[in-house]
Amino acid sequence: METNILIVGTGGIGGYFGGRLQEAGATVSTVSNSDFETVKQYGYDIKSIYGDFTFKPVEVVKKANDFSKKADYLIVALKVLPEIDTISLIKDAVSTETTIILIQNGINIEKHIYQQFPNNEIISAIAYIGVRKTDPGKIIHQDNGKLIIGKYPYGKSCIARKFADLFENTHIPCKVVENIQYYRWLKLVWNIPYNSVSVLGNHADTKSIMDNEYSLNLIKKLMQEVANCAEKDGYKLDDNVIQENLDFTSTLSPYKTSMLIDFENNRKMEIDAILGNTIELADKLNVNIPHIKTIYALLKLVNRNKVKLASDFSAK
Amino acid sequence: METNILIVGTGGIGGYFGGRLQEAGATVSTVSNSDFETVKQYGYDIKSIYGDFTFKPVEVVKKANDFSKKADYLIVALKVLPEIDTISLIKDAVSTETTIILIQNGINIEKHIYQQFPNNEIISAIAYIGVRKTDPGKIIHQDNGKLIIGKYPYGKSCIARKFADLFENTHIPCKVVENIQYYRWLKLVWNIPYNSVSVLGNHADTKSIMDNEYSLNLIKKLMQEVANCAEKDGYKLDDNVIQENLDFTSTLSPYKTSMLIDFENNRKMEIDAILGNTIELADKLNVNIPHIKTIYALLKLVNRNKVKLASDFSAK
Repeated sequence: METNILIVGTGGIGGYFGGRLQEAGATVSTVSNSDFETVKQYGYDIKSIYGDFTFKPVEVVKKANDFSKKADYLIVALKVLPEIDTISLIKDAVSTETTIILIQNGINIEKHIYQQFPNNEIISAIAYIGVRKTDPGKIIHQDNGKLIIGKYPYGKSCIARKFADLFENTHIPCKVVENIQYYRWLKLVWNIPYNSVSVLGNHADTKSIMDNEYSLNLIKKLMQEVANCAEKDGYKLDDNVIQENLDFTSTLSPYKTSMLIDFENNRKMEIDAILGNTIELADKLNVNIPHIKTIYALLKLVNRNKVKLASDFSAK
Repeated sequence: METNILIVGTGGIGGYFGGRLQEAGATVSTVSNSDFETVKQYGYDIKSIYGDFTFKPVEVVKKANDFSKKADYLIVALKVLPEIDTISLIKDAVSTETTIILIQNGINIEKHIYQQFPNNEIISAIAYIGVRKTDPGKIIHQDNGKLIIGKYPYGKSCIARKFADLFENTHIPCKVVENIQYYRWLKLVWNIPYNSVSVLGNHADTKSIMDNEYSLNLIKKLMQEVANCAEKDGYKLDDNVIQENLDFTSTLSPYKTSMLIDFENNRKMEIDAILGNTIELADKLNVNIPHIKTIYALLKLVNRNKVKLASDFSAK
């Protein structure tokens, strides 16, 4: 039986995972916009560390409503920005049988989708990958490719299991968990400090941040505040989580965060998905996070004159 | 009787105030370094809103030791940076009769001078002025020119009064106060928030900062933390101080702070004089200032690859 997948948001993330799913035998279509003509004719040209390949979607449409099939899985790989109305971009392709999979950054980014489509299974997915679209139809995959997925808000899910099985024999390890929020918090422990400080620290790569005693100390405080939020939200992280993240980062080659790359390309940054939602939760849970609030305010100011969105509003 | 003045640090501030003092009848000499030859030959060419004039110092020397006279007043208009050893730059021109006048930014910037020269009167001075050196020997005075001066650490001072009297009939109102620290705190209420946020907010002028609800809110929190430090330090500021500073800033034409101008010119910023010393005091006084600490850490990171000092290490 055919597995029909529609991808909305075909930047690096959407294009790359779509290509891998097609390789694995699924029938994958895309909503493409800025590079519609190129993709319709040539598909996505993907340069990957595991070998280059072409991903030619079965259908390439300009909007969800033009999709002729019934999506078993609708993968959302859009950026999470106040300017992007995800619901209106996907709703015409969501049927009663459609599972919605969100491969996106941040915390509490599933809620409005969950409320809008109460009868659909929502799978929340976190990608650990270095991939980006460089030109229309051109994607470069540079590093990693792991997925962690789980039913939103939490729990066991046969559908998540079935979706993960599609990745068997691909280059994408896909782990299914019952407490995806825990993993979102875990990722924020790294994402909030490094993304923010790299942008606010005047184009600081990971090494510059780690080498400066003041920013290193700030990173630790930010991590602690994220861990405090997680704990009050019911997800106690391991006591070693801060030290492990610091140690891990020290082993990396000097590296620009994705938010810094957005900043340098004059693109809107995902400040609200990553920091704003954390602050909203912290206020609700009465957690004191002044360091995160300070960098959030500064990033909101920095974001003021970023006008470009990524092509197709896509992640990466 | 001749009043001999030596100015160390002849950027915009030192050059302009030196010129006004000479106009008023004092015998003014300068330690000039980067523009020694130009100044020795032509003096300082000063374009001022009150009319252009030339300030030709009586002596122009390369270092304090070369000064042939006895300084009644030694004016320090150097930037306050860890890299600048003020004491060694002035000590050869300080005699038992010399009054040292510090026209510099920040808080607690007098202490090491006071400890080094315990028998000399130290006058702490705050300048409210828009002036900068644009080229060797060229100074542009754009706005204002008020001085507030007082004996360090506090108290009445005939010498301060006498020095202020030199400015009579010049374009520089000079007010003598007995509690100069109070005025330093008062200036920090504006300086800490706007200088820092303008740099960290991606080249934000005052209007951009005021127009963004997030940065405006951060500005208020930073101001409140400065006011809390001042109060614990024994200087209770007026309850309206925050609202007055906000109202005042709203009336300004969009304006780049001096720290932002240093940043854009790749010059070291006076982060420790303005923020680091505030934090040191806050820690000693047990005042909680997490917002100031966050921006300080970020600015220390931003400052990491600023290598240029102002010419002659001078203020402005």
